[in-house]
Amino acid sequence: MINGEKNVEQPIRWAMVGGGRGSQIGYIHRSAALRDHNFELVAGAFDINPERGKDFGMNLHVDPERCYPDYKTMFEEEAKREDGIQAVSVATPNGTHYEITKAALNAGLHVVCEKPLCFTTEEALELQEIATAKNLVVGVTYGYAGHQMIDQARRMIENGDLGEIRIVKMQFAHGFHSAAVEENSESTKWRVDPKVAGPSYVLGDVGTHPLYISEVMLPNLKIKKLMCSRQSFVKSRAPLEDNAFTIMEYDNGAVGYVWSSCVNAGSMHGQTIRVIGSKASIEWWDEHPNQLRYEVQGQPAQILDRGMDYLYPEALTDDRIGGGHPEGLFEAWSNLYTRFAKAMVAADRREAFDTSWYPGIEAGVEGVRWVENCVRSADNGAVWIEYQ
Amino acid sequence: MINGEKNVEQPIRWAMVGGGRGSQIGYIHRSAALRDHNFELVAGAFDINPERGKDFGMNLHVDPERCYPDYKTMFEEEAKREDGIQAVSVATPNGTHYEITKAALNAGLHVVCEKPLCFTTEEALELQEIATAKNLVVGVTYGYAGHQMIDQARRMIENGDLGEIRIVKMQFAHGFHSAAVEENSESTKWRVDPKVAGPSYVLGDVGTHPLYISEVMLPNLKIKKLMCSRQSFVKSRAPLEDNAFTIMEYDNGAVGYVWSSCVNAGSMHGQTIRVIGSKASIEWWDEHPNQLRYEVQGQPAQILDRGMDYLYPEALTDDRIGGGHPEGLFEAWSNLYTRFAKAMVAADRREAFDTSWYPGIEAGVEGVRWVENCVRSADNGAVWIEYQ
Amino acid sequence: MINGEKNVEQPIRWAMVGGGRGSQIGYIHRSAALRDHNFELVAGAFDINPERGKDFGMNLHVDPERCYPDYKTMFEEEAKREDGIQAVSVATPNGTHYEITKAALNAGLHVVCEKPLCFTTEEALELQEIATAKNLVVGVTYGYAGHQMIDQARRMIENGDLGEIRIVKMQFAHGFHSAAVEENSESTKWRVDPKVAGPSYVLGDVGTHPLYISEVMLPNLKIKKLMCSRQSFVKSRAPLEDNAFTIMEYDNGAVGYVWSSCVNAGSMHGQTIRVIGSKASIEWWDEHPNQLRYEVQGQPAQILDRGMDYLYPEALTDDRIGGGHPEGLFEAWSNLYTRFAKAMVAADRREAFDTSWYPGIEAGVEGVRWVENCVRSADNGAVWIEYQ
Amino acid sequence: MINGEKNVEQPIRWAMVGGGRGSQIGYIHRSAALRDHNFELVAGAFDINPERGKDFGMNLHVDPERCYPDYKTMFEEEAKREDGIQAVSVATPNGTHYEITKAALNAGLHVVCEKPLCFTTEEALELQEIATAKNLVVGVTYGYAGHQMIDQARRMIENGDLGEIRIVKMQFAHGFHSAAVEENSESTKWRVDPKVAGPSYVLGDVGTHPLYISEVMLPNLKIKKLMCSRQSFVKSRAPLEDNAFTIMEYDNGAVGYVWSSCVNAGSMHGQTIRVIGSKASIEWWDEHPNQLRYEVQGQPAQILDRGMDYLYPEALTDDRIGGGHPEGLFEAWSNLYTRFAKAMVAADRREAFDTSWYPGIEAGVEGVRWVENCVRSADNGAVWIEYQ
Repeated sequence: MINGEKNVEQPIRWAMVGGGRGSQIGYIHRSAALRDHNFELVAGAFDINPERGKDFGMNLHVDPERCYPDYKTMFEEEAKREDGIQAVSVATPNGTHYEITKAALNAGLHVVCEKPLCFTTEEALELQEIATAKNLVVGVTYGYAGHQMIDQARRMIENGDLGEIRIVKMQFAHGFHSAAVEENSESTKWRVDPKVAGPSYVLGDVGTHPLYISEVMLPNLKIKKLMCSRQSFVKSRAPLEDNAFTIMEYDNGAVGYVWSSCVNAGSMHGQTIRVIGSKASIEWWDEHPNQLRYEVQGQPAQILDRGMDYLYPEALTDDRIGGGHPEGLFEAWSNLYTRFAKAMVAADRREAFDTSWYPGIEAGVEGVRWVENCVRSADNGAVWIEYQ
Repeated sequence: MINGEKNVEQPIRWAMVGGGRGSQIGYIHRSAALRDHNFELVAGAFDINPERGKDFGMNLHVDPERCYPDYKTMFEEEAKREDGIQAVSVATPNGTHYEITKAALNAGLHVVCEKPLCFTTEEALELQEIATAKNLVVGVTYGYAGHQMIDQARRMIENGDLGEIRIVKMQFAHGFHSAAVEENSESTKWRVDPKVAGPSYVLGDVGTHPLYISEVMLPNLKIKKLMCSRQSFVKSRAPLEDNAFTIMEYDNGAVGYVWSSCVNAGSMHGQTIRVIGSKASIEWWDEHPNQLRYEVQGQPAQILDRGMDYLYPEALTDDRIGGGHPEGLFEAWSNLYTRFAKAMVAADRREAFDTSWYPGIEAGVEGVRWVENCVRSADNGAVWIEYQ
Repeated sequence: MINGEKNVEQPIRWAMVGGGRGSQIGYIHRSAALRDHNFELVAGAFDINPERGKDFGMNLHVDPERCYPDYKTMFEEEAKREDGIQAVSVATPNGTHYEITKAALNAGLHVVCEKPLCFTTEEALELQEIATAKNLVVGVTYGYAGHQMIDQARRMIENGDLGEIRIVKMQFAHGFHSAAVEENSESTKWRVDPKVAGPSYVLGDVGTHPLYISEVMLPNLKIKKLMCSRQSFVKSRAPLEDNAFTIMEYDNGAVGYVWSSCVNAGSMHGQTIRVIGSKASIEWWDEHPNQLRYEVQGQPAQILDRGMDYLYPEALTDDRIGGGHPEGLFEAWSNLYTRFAKAMVAADRREAFDTSWYPGIEAGVEGVRWVENCVRSADNGAVWIEYQ
Repeated sequence: MINGEKNVEQPIRWAMVGGGRGSQIGYIHRSAALRDHNFELVAGAFDINPERGKDFGMNLHVDPERCYPDYKTMFEEEAKREDGIQAVSVATPNGTHYEITKAALNAGLHVVCEKPLCFTTEEALELQEIATAKNLVVGVTYGYAGHQMIDQARRMIENGDLGEIRIVKMQFAHGFHSAAVEENSESTKWRVDPKVAGPSYVLGDVGTHPLYISEVMLPNLKIKKLMCSRQSFVKSRAPLEDNAFTIMEYDNGAVGYVWSSCVNAGSMHGQTIRVIGSKASIEWWDEHPNQLRYEVQGQPAQILDRGMDYLYPEALTDDRIGGGHPEGLFEAWSNLYTRFAKAMVAADRREAFDTSWYPGIEAGVEGVRWVENCVRSADNGAVWIEYQ
């Protein structure tokens, strides 16, 4: 149970690239990193506009001298300091993740990067190679995975409560971009520009979230074949899709479905995952993350609540407040940042890392790989392809 | 509003084939047909065992002389009577629907047939041809379509409340056959035997239900292409599937998804349809049929309730009891049987039929056609095919 | 399981008083009585307007000669026939229930009466005395009690699944009369006129429904003391209340709460009952009657579904269609009418009645008694009173 | 919208009394106070065991010299420092709140105190007098009130969306103490000991939470009369109640109900508030705090979601993450602590405080007053009393 006491001996000296004034995601990163006193924000290149970035950093109590105009300067200058940064979080538009993460790794820094890590599997594997060679941690913020009921699901599946797994049904289908809101919204505009956003929109932007949750819940499942059908209902978004359906065949005979959409009119998030076994199913919905529905065939459906004694111990590790009290997205992110911190400390000490899982460089690679395969299928007429 | 007064001048003289003792579906047919006094049960070939059938019929107050050993005898004998049957309902295993319906039509009888009407589009079109030539009504019991909120949805879509339709998401995915229950259940055994059940299991058995609801809600939508992936998770069921996913492209650019399953462990029915437009979505769930969820993008989600004044008039026509009181499956079926009766009377009088829709011979044809196309896609490696 | 076969050897010859054209409640009575072929509608005094009543009856296929101008004539004339009526249902405004029921009993007829049976406990006990003396059945249509999950709850409590019962929390609180709709609605107008409606509005009109359900679930619980606070938020309704709260102390130390309201703006029915024991609680909501929530302290909440094998056998007796398919209010009423029929047949044969419970004359008496006590408390300043 | 930038120029120097190792509530206080950088934890008397308290404080990065053995020493020693504490939070058992708060105020410190502030209205008014005289802020942690949908409700009511308010229905009824868990739980034991817990258990412990929410939503509503019935279902808890029902008459003719319970077996929190007006109702449930149900009579029910543009601006002020993402209890508490900080800064500057509301000393007084009145009613036989 988390109670605010130290997780690491000394907070990690930490900086941000991007995530400045007006950035929602930047706020979540800071809130999560600072929550459990594992990180200390000491520097930043918060904004493409240096003045605005400096003012913003000062307002966060960052030393003005360490509010840098760009990430290159920051990595150079911080390397010269004895108390220089040890880790950096990257919260910039997608098209810059690769180069910033690469530069950070080359500067010897641990990295927490927004998803997608990059645009191609080739790039992703290159980053993985550097990180491995330099013994550095790369965390990728699949933030929803930090919810405790995901751990409960993982253990239930591992313990055979569901029987043999047959079907994994996933969706992240919101409706906020049912109209061409990008015409009047800078923060959406780049997401539908292939140069900045990469080869896909919703597949990468939302679809990879439940996909990663499925990887956490079902670490042994491997995709063998895949078919993806994608559409651009708002025509100006083509070739990027605003809706896609992916069917996957796993190597053990199970099947997976992923519905990715931003045109599911009226839906808030619509992120759910249902894992169906030969004996029972579980279902989780990110808008009400403290509950997990457990349906054993032939028995009454059960609603498991976060923080309760009947859960597996692994699902109680990150409990902050007891059952009944709702925890939210910030706790999920904070839980992941704590794992990132522990992994970074362990890496620095060349120790084995004692946390069982966190979204690391492999998660980053697999997300990019999946999008690449989906796009390859879709662009060839939604054909079945061997997963590469 | 329905109040139990006559819908037709004289109840239609009606018989059943099948649906005898222990048959759940037989009971629903009788309950629906007799509910509004549109039909009068006067004869039957209720059971493959003549003795049991006769005893059963007598217990339903049917004249023992009109409890027949088989449908052929019944059609022959009844044809000789002045007060002979005018209509017959077929509630036998799937493999017999075609021949019984054909015989009934050839005997000059209106027919209400369980779905599927038959196994091939060719057969279905043949039945359609006979029915048309003889001016006879064929009703197909897609019973869920009789729920009033389906009418509300149909009118909302027609009136443009949802904007341009983009996505139709359907599922009927229960978990009752997660294990090989057919080994110990006669009523399930024939469903997984291709000789009796036809070329598919769940596609036809459950998938065609939400498909037909989509046809009611969206009468102008035409399938252009289709891809179906099917599995037999209980191995002994192969080649018949116990799980399938179908993706459809409609001719106007919209897409449709249908998940059909009987291995969705722990799910009761899991029959839902969500229609997504450029402005709003609606969603309906057959287990709570009195509600319709209406989500306008950018506005609070709304929950519409059956029987309320704010609904379109078409959704209030079949109201029996006012808002708040739950109606159930029996009312849905009864509403359809009333339409069948009105259609039969109108046909006999060579009058135009004044009810806007009911699941007739076209619904029967389209259901069979869809399954045929799904199986063709699935058996060719889940490839995309032109819809025929 | 109900399958439409005979429950009684010969349908009971049955008539209605009231419930004519435009009456919702009349339709429910007929639908329920005729559903399972236990009753045959052979006569009626359907309307205060004889012409309209006759036309209405004929439209229900009743012999025009047996469509009577008033109940007195009907009882007299039918008594002269060999095939005269055996039972009558009373669906008239409250103020007439007593005199019609009394006349029917004195005419030797079994009665099914709308609640309230009458206005005073004294009258109720008088009716009970006559019914007992003449060995006649009086059914009172607390129709919600016919839902199968009520039987499940009753057995769970009896079997100790909840532990010792501590609290019974009830409400029937709709919002349909938030405004003074009676100014423009005849069917509501009489309900707020003490001369026609009796000494209370919502206490009797809605509050007695969950109260009776609690009597079914908890047959041994006896009210010892009671306090009722009532209000007339629409001023013109005074002295009749449109909102009331009643607290009860039972003789075993348990407490009960009943919220009765017609000004719960925006609520459909809002009829729920929650029974809380030392180990677990159950909760039932009449708008979704196929589910029963079961919450064992320290365990995940469970949702029980109608028609499932895990229920107690008593909760499956009345199953018509299997789990997953929604049954509704009509089935609940039909189940009760079947019990009424069996009770009438048994009474005629002087046999013990084999159905465990139905809302009979005692239910009628207790409903009237409860309202009388509530009003007595409320009118004395919402003081605690000994229950009489 | 909150983005982590400074709310106050300099973080307030802050300490805790109680809330040490193993204290859940202590963690929430720290998490909330530190979240938005309005407070800095610089001292503490965390534990009744000085050694354990010191170790705990050091683990929170507090200077060991400022980890004090008791609150008196802390107030004395800190007063001597130039950088001494400016504010203190009190998270100790109920019986000590009064003396610690009084000592803190007399030491010139702003205070955040756990509810209840004290045991008698007399004590509460004394604290209020001191705070007023010394121009000090006292915040009382009715933490649920910090949820944004409470602000939405407040504005809807103020703007007349509900019409004239008629009924306020409240409950906080969990089941965690259905059995005598206090026999084996220190953290529960003191709650049922009148010497430590005060004159009531659930009335104060849980009932005052929704009561305060009603005060926020309906600031003009004044209780005129009240009746409270309380029980001790676990006998050993007497005279303290584990279940209570309170009915209130407000001075404008509206009525209020509060159900307070810890024996609602199987319920998680069960904290809800429903405000019913002549036109519409709203309902909020603390376990799913991001939604607010809005039911206009005669229209479909609406579900409002946190963070959406259609909300009143006041309900968006504290938004941290946009609609769809769940916020939880920690954000609610953080929002309140931010208001406390702004109020403290404003008080120090003798400026008017610009935040519209927060649970201050008046909230503390009113909570104590309500419990006192409830107990007075209950102990006199659950009679109606004039509210004092």
